[in-house]
Amino acid sequence: MAATDHRRATAERNVSAILDAVERLLARSATVTIAAVAAESGVSRVTVYAHFDSVAALLEAVVRRAVKGALAALAAADPASGPARDALDRVVDASWQVLDRHSGMARTAAELLSAERLRASHEQAMVPVRELIERGRAEGAFRTDLPADWLVTVFYALLHATGDDVRAGRIDQASAAAVLRTTLHSVLAG
Amino acid sequence: MAATDHRRATAERNVSAILDAVERLLARSATVTIAAVAAESGVSRVTVYAHFDSVAALLEAVVRRAVKGALAALAAADPASGPARDALDRVVDASWQVLDRHSGMARTAAELLSAERLRASHEQAMVPVRELIERGRAEGAFRTDLPADWLVTVFYALLHATGDDVRAGRIDQASAAAVLRTTLHSVLAG
Repeated sequence: MAATDHRRATAERNVSAILDAVERLLARSATVTIAAVAAESGVSRVTVYAHFDSVAALLEAVVRRAVKGALAALAAADPASGPARDALDRVVDASWQVLDRHSGMARTAAELLSAERLRASHEQAMVPVRELIERGRAEGAFRTDLPADWLVTVFYALLHATGDDVRAGRIDQASAAAVLRTTLHSVLAG
Repeated sequence: MAATDHRRATAERNVSAILDAVERLLARSATVTIAAVAAESGVSRVTVYAHFDSVAALLEAVVRRAVKGALAALAAADPASGPARDALDRVVDASWQVLDRHSGMARTAAELLSAERLRASHEQAMVPVRELIERGRAEGAFRTDLPADWLVTVFYALLHATGDDVRAGRIDQASAAAVLRTTLHSVLAG
């Protein structure tokens, strides 16, 4: 079984290197081709093809990995514990860090992927935010005069707007999370 | 001069018919070609070409006309008069009506036009909103603990988010303007 384990470890390492390379290419808005990914990752074209038979498969895999990372970061922020307003701060910070780390990639992937696939990946990430908002409403910490669905939309719309303003130089990187926290508290408190 | 006036009136009527046709094609996500525009507008291809030498020129003209309409609607809302919070309500309602009327077109045009051209057209429309926000801050009606630029971004981000949620059926058409007004008052009051 040692040979099998070794082959599996090598395959996992190659897939990681390939997806890291796709992220770097997307972050600098380079065209993603199997050849470019092979060159960037140091993995042979044959090996890239062995794992991913098309550029679309590569993009889907890299978005799936990013969403998995976002869900892990949101879970680590422990949204179900403590006062809802404190949990909101932790969730905002975690979301902002994820967006900030993936911002170049997310923007390019959004242009290349189908709208349905993008929405599906966001909806998964919206679940913990929706749960926190509903908990805060039940506990009287958040407003109930606007639909919960809309408050979830506001969370993601302002998260992405913060990313756009940082990229455009209208908000500096260092104060972005605080600006977003303050704004969302105003909306959610009502 | 009667012949010249007549020719000018005919040209203006043709341009209006052509741009109305482009809007209808965009609203139903149809592909915009010179042939499709001619068929939709009832104007000959030769006449379409006489006014617009490319699909890009048609799209630019239709966006320019929409922005002009938006600026007229914002001016009619009289943002410089009366209490800033009342002026905000009028500006929100006017902006929402413009977005709602052009929503299908705006979405498709956004996918077809360059990012710079889109941003430039939005920046023109942002001027009256920025002026209102700055007046409200000077008069003590709006918060000053967040950058004015960011509050302008929030205005447009939530306006477009409302459009997305109405299209997706998460907010009903009838309550959209009220939801947006309530949300923006919370953000701007702080």
